[in-house]
Amino acid sequence: MPRVVELAGGVGGAKLADGLLAELGAELTVVVNSGDDLVLHGLTIWPDHDTVAYTLAGLDDSERGWGLANETWTVMDRLGDLGDETWFRLGDRDLATHLWRSDRLREGARATAIARDLADRMGIAATILPMTDDEVRTEVRTDDGWLEFQEYFVHRHQVPAVHEVRFRGAAQAVTTPEVLGAFGEAELIVIAPSNPIVSVGPILAVGGVREALGAARRRGVPILAVSGIVGGRALKGPADRMLTSLGHEASALGVARLYADLIDGFVLDDLDAGLRPPIEALGLATLVTDTIMTHDASRARFAGEVVAFGCSLRPVHP
Amino acid sequence: MPRVVELAGGVGGAKLADGLLAELGAELTVVVNSGDDLVLHGLTIWPDHDTVAYTLAGLDDSERGWGLANETWTVMDRLGDLGDETWFRLGDRDLATHLWRSDRLREGARATAIARDLADRMGIAATILPMTDDEVRTEVRTDDGWLEFQEYFVHRHQVPAVHEVRFRGAAQAVTTPEVLGAFGEAELIVIAPSNPIVSVGPILAVGGVREALGAARRRGVPILAVSGIVGGRALKGPADRMLTSLGHEASALGVARLYADLIDGFVLDDLDAGLRPPIEALGLATLVTDTIMTHDASRARFAGEVVAFGCSLRPVHP
Repeated sequence: MPRVVELAGGVGGAKLADGLLAELGAELTVVVNSGDDLVLHGLTIWPDHDTVAYTLAGLDDSERGWGLANETWTVMDRLGDLGDETWFRLGDRDLATHLWRSDRLREGARATAIARDLADRMGIAATILPMTDDEVRTEVRTDDGWLEFQEYFVHRHQVPAVHEVRFRGAAQAVTTPEVLGAFGEAELIVIAPSNPIVSVGPILAVGGVREALGAARRRGVPILAVSGIVGGRALKGPADRMLTSLGHEASALGVARLYADLIDGFVLDDLDAGLRPPIEALGLATLVTDTIMTHDASRARFAGEVVAFGCSLRPVHP
Repeated sequence: MPRVVELAGGVGGAKLADGLLAELGAELTVVVNSGDDLVLHGLTIWPDHDTVAYTLAGLDDSERGWGLANETWTVMDRLGDLGDETWFRLGDRDLATHLWRSDRLREGARATAIARDLADRMGIAATILPMTDDEVRTEVRTDDGWLEFQEYFVHRHQVPAVHEVRFRGAAQAVTTPEVLGAFGEAELIVIAPSNPIVSVGPILAVGGVREALGAARRRGVPILAVSGIVGGRALKGPADRMLTSLGHEASALGVARLYADLIDGFVLDDLDAGLRPPIEALGLATLVTDTIMTHDASRARFAGEVVAFGCSLRPVHP
C-alpha cells in the first residue's frame, strides 16, 4: 500500500479519509485544517479534526453530519438554563473530548501530541495531524464586517455573503515536524473535496506547507485534488456561494484553477464530464468518476479509484 | 426577620441553610467553605458551595446527598472511555455549572462575583458567599502522607485515619468585603452542623474571619453553633473518627469545646441531653432539641427553633 497524505477539512475530508483508511490502514496520514478551531465555555474545540477523528473511529453521527453518534445534550441544555450561549451545540459525549483536550493544552502539550494521543485512545489506525501547533483563525468579511469563522458558519448559518477571507496568525504559523515528515515519506498526496477557500486554504497558508508540497512533487510524488463542487453546487456547506462571491467560478473547473499550480491530477464527478477538456487544458491529468460517497462501500470504492489514479500519474511503486 | 449569617460546609450546612431560607428568605447569607475546592479536567469545582447552592435552588439530589437531581453521567462515562480519571463523579447537569464557572474564573472574575451571579441565575433568594476569593486548600496527613482533601474524602472514601490537618494558603488568604459586610449587618451568626475540623475550620482560618466574629459579638450579635455529632456519631462524613484521631472527643461536648471561645450558645440533639451540664459549664447557653433534618418540614421547624434560640440570647430585635 502506498503511503498517502490527505489534506482535509471537515465532512468531505472525513468521508474520503474513511475510504482511504479502509484501503490503506496505517499508511494514511490526514493533515487537518485547524483554522476553524474555537474556544467556547473555556474549551478548545477542533471541529474539522474531530469530524475526521470521529469518522475514522466509526463513532460519527452520519445523519447529523457532525459530532458523535448516540449523543445527548444535557450539559448544553443546562448551560442554556444558566443563561450561557448555546448556538454552538456540544453534545455530552463530544464534550468529553473537549474537556480532555483543553486540560492537556493548558498543561502545555502540543496540539500534535494531543491529536496523536487522542487517536490512540479512540483506536484509530491512521495518523491525524493538525496543520500546525500554532493558532490560526479563519475570518470572513461580510456585509456585517469581519466575522470569526464559526460565527459565520454556525451562528449565522452561512447566510452573509463572503467578500474576503483571511487566516489570522497564518503568517507567523509554521507547520510541524510531523507534517513535514509525513510529506517527506508520502508516495501520494490528495487534497480532499473540502472547501478550497476556508478548509484547504488555511492548510496551504501555514508556513512550510506549500514548500513541502513543491519539494514532494520534485521528488516525483504526485499530488491530486478532488472537486467538492459537483454540478456547480457544493456537496455540503457554502463553498459554491463563497467561490462566486470571491470572484471564482463555482464549478469543478473553478476549483481546478485554484489548485492548478500545486497539483498533477484532478478528480471530478461524472456529472461534470463536460469540464474535462478545460481542466486538462490547465495541464492536469483527470479522473472522471462517481465522486459521491453516500455509504461505506462507495467511500472505499472511490478511495480505491483515487489511489489507483494517483499512483498511475507517476510510478511511485515499482 | 433577623439578618442571619450561617457558616457552612456541605450537606449539613445545606440542610440548615434550606430551613433558614424558608424562615428568613433574603435575610439569609451563607458563608461557605472553599477549602474543599479542586480542579479536575481543567474545571474548578466548588463542592461545598454547590451543595448549598443546589439545595437552596431546590435542585439537589437528596437521596445521593450531592449533585443535582435528575442527573445523567454521559460525559463522565465518555471521559472514562478516553482513559481519563473518573473517581470524582461529575454529572452532566453539574458539569454545566463547572464549565460556566471555570470560564468566568479564567476571565478573571472574583469567586464572590461568580457565586452571586450563579445564585441569581439559579433563582436563589439568599446570598451565598465563598469564605475568600483566595485559594485555600485543605490537606490531611494520614499514614499515606499528606493528601488533598478530595483525594482523602472521595477517592479514598475517608478510610485513612487523619493525624493532622492543614489549610494551605489560609495564612495568606483574606476574607472578602462581602463576608465582612454580612458579618457587619448580621443580627445572628450560626455555625452549621458541619465538620468542625475540615468544613468550619477553613472558614475560621481565613484572615479576618475570627476578628470579624469577635467584633460582631462585642456589638451584641450572638453566635451559636449546632452540633453535627449526635450520640457520638457524625450525621454524615468522617467527623467522628477525625475528632478522635486528632485527640478531641467525638461528641457534642467535644464540638462545643472546639467552639467555646467563639460562641454564646450551642444546639445539641435530644439524644445528647445528658451533655447539657458540661456544655453549659463551658459558659454556653444551650438548646436541646431534635436536630435531625430529614425533610423540608423538619428543616424549617429546626431552623425556626435555632433562630428563636439565637435571638433570645440577646435581644437584637427590640
